[in-house]
Amino acid sequence: MRFSPGGANPDVLISECGPRDGLQILAQIMPTDAKKRWLVALHAAGLREIEVCSFVPAKLMPQMADAADVVAFARTLPGLTVLALVPNLRGAEAAIAAGAHKLTIPVSGSEEHSLANVRKTRAEMVAEVRRIVEYRNVSAPHVAVEANVSVAFGCTIAGPVPEDEVVRLCAELVEAGVDDSGLSDTTGMANPGQVRRLFGRVIREIGDRTGAAHMHNTRGLGLANNLAAYDAGVRIFDSSLGGLGGCPHAPGASGNVVTEDLVFMFEAMGVRTGIDLEKLVAARRPMRDGLPGVDVHGMIAEAGLPKGFNAATGRASP
Amino acid sequence: MRFSPGGANPDVLISECGPRDGLQILAQIMPTDAKKRWLVALHAAGLREIEVCSFVPAKLMPQMADAADVVAFARTLPGLTVLALVPNLRGAEAAIAAGAHKLTIPVSGSEEHSLANVRKTRAEMVAEVRRIVEYRNVSAPHVAVEANVSVAFGCTIAGPVPEDEVVRLCAELVEAGVDDSGLSDTTGMANPGQVRRLFGRVIREIGDRTGAAHMHNTRGLGLANNLAAYDAGVRIFDSSLGGLGGCPHAPGASGNVVTEDLVFMFEAMGVRTGIDLEKLVAARRPMRDGLPGVDVHGMIAEAGLPKGFNAATGRASP
Repeated sequence: MRFSPGGANPDVLISECGPRDGLQILAQIMPTDAKKRWLVALHAAGLREIEVCSFVPAKLMPQMADAADVVAFARTLPGLTVLALVPNLRGAEAAIAAGAHKLTIPVSGSEEHSLANVRKTRAEMVAEVRRIVEYRNVSAPHVAVEANVSVAFGCTIAGPVPEDEVVRLCAELVEAGVDDSGLSDTTGMANPGQVRRLFGRVIREIGDRTGAAHMHNTRGLGLANNLAAYDAGVRIFDSSLGGLGGCPHAPGASGNVVTEDLVFMFEAMGVRTGIDLEKLVAARRPMRDGLPGVDVHGMIAEAGLPKGFNAATGRASP
Repeated sequence: MRFSPGGANPDVLISECGPRDGLQILAQIMPTDAKKRWLVALHAAGLREIEVCSFVPAKLMPQMADAADVVAFARTLPGLTVLALVPNLRGAEAAIAAGAHKLTIPVSGSEEHSLANVRKTRAEMVAEVRRIVEYRNVSAPHVAVEANVSVAFGCTIAGPVPEDEVVRLCAELVEAGVDDSGLSDTTGMANPGQVRRLFGRVIREIGDRTGAAHMHNTRGLGLANNLAAYDAGVRIFDSSLGGLGGCPHAPGASGNVVTEDLVFMFEAMGVRTGIDLEKLVAARRPMRDGLPGVDVHGMIAEAGLPKGFNAATGRASP
């Protein structure tokens, strides 16, 4: 984990992925100005890493056509790590040219998903990651590169994904030179026992190169899985404001873990996130304004903070 | 814990509380025949303990006016422990007369909640529990009695509830003769750290008299809190089909933990519940039929089981 928890830093890093993972699945396109207002609100709530866009052909994903503009704006927010998804070297070149501080590359945990998704085998994707790292090393050594294993806990095409293969893939990605590698439950198939076991193995294999837990709430286990990942030693968590990014396979079900609820869980446990929950809930407003009629999820925004919960310290008094 | 996990028994006991906890909060009254059809479906799914009703004056709670009839019917379902809530000795007498196998008595963890809810101090409630136990000992020694501490993790009136007082209350209830005593997060204020710590203390204090974790999902932490309780050693879990029993303070928020999602979490982890998930999801039908237009929650019923999940063993293949 390149993030160093504790001390002046919060105990965990919450990496907001809504502006990328949430928006890319919607038919609706959020206007660039609305994205900027939303980013300002997320940053004001204390988020210090935001996945703001992906660099993919605008023809394939018109929601991300303004990626370079969004990155340039996000760079003006003090202390923010501007994260961009890139599926390949061409995307990485564009992201680095735009000024992204960090790149994230998804690499499928199953061969079937990899072929279906990017028409490359996993080995070919590892080679692509290596090319991205080499390009970064030469052209922009200050830019961080992470590569997370998607469908790490189960695949809608292949079904169960062998844990040995996931662990080996993380090791190969680190060997290819990424700064960190995490695990994504892209399909919402993970359970807490599996999360503890698999992240435990990854941490034993790649140590402090272990990156984020990216959990989905498709089957309701998102927060329990994040708790399990925290228990295993993970300190970086991806989530999306309002759970934006409903899973297309589960109508009515939130896809991504809801940032507000995740932050509430950690803060209530005394695990510092550095995030102001009230401002975070307030950041739902510019998101909704930019996406009229969108489905927004999350419990804490509905129920409010518990009586006696100290919003300043993020903890219940005694 | 009077429930003995493992061996021929499942690893955990899921105690379905929807027919009591879920129904009592609704303005709508489920017809007795519909309740019976629902109980049949719950039993067919493998549930072996169901809180079928409460024995309270029908004037105060018309939803439970048919309590004796429901208990008599539930007794015909083989292997089922028929659980009834009783707030006082009068209720206990009626429940025992009707043939309930087990009584559950809620005792408030905070003085303020106790006075507001039953107009008795906590000490007076402990005395009432003692009278119920004495009555049971004489008139129906085969009937089990549990007393769970409500608002154990926080109170909407008092705010934080001192953990020492909760642990002491459990000890007093065991001293008063109950078979087991658990903790209820009535207000949905618990967090996983607190759950592990407080249940850990209760288990150290009263050992195998530790009863159920009764968690609410008001702020989205229901399953994470159940995971934490399981980690602490709890083996009995209350939940409600479809999360029936929305919290009146949190519109749109599910109150009780959703039985289907809880069972999915445990089965996916390899923790045996003895429950058939497909039949459990099917039991939502008679519930909806008996409560037209009711809000039903739950993720697994929407998303379906993951590919490769073995419904017979309740586990993903490898």
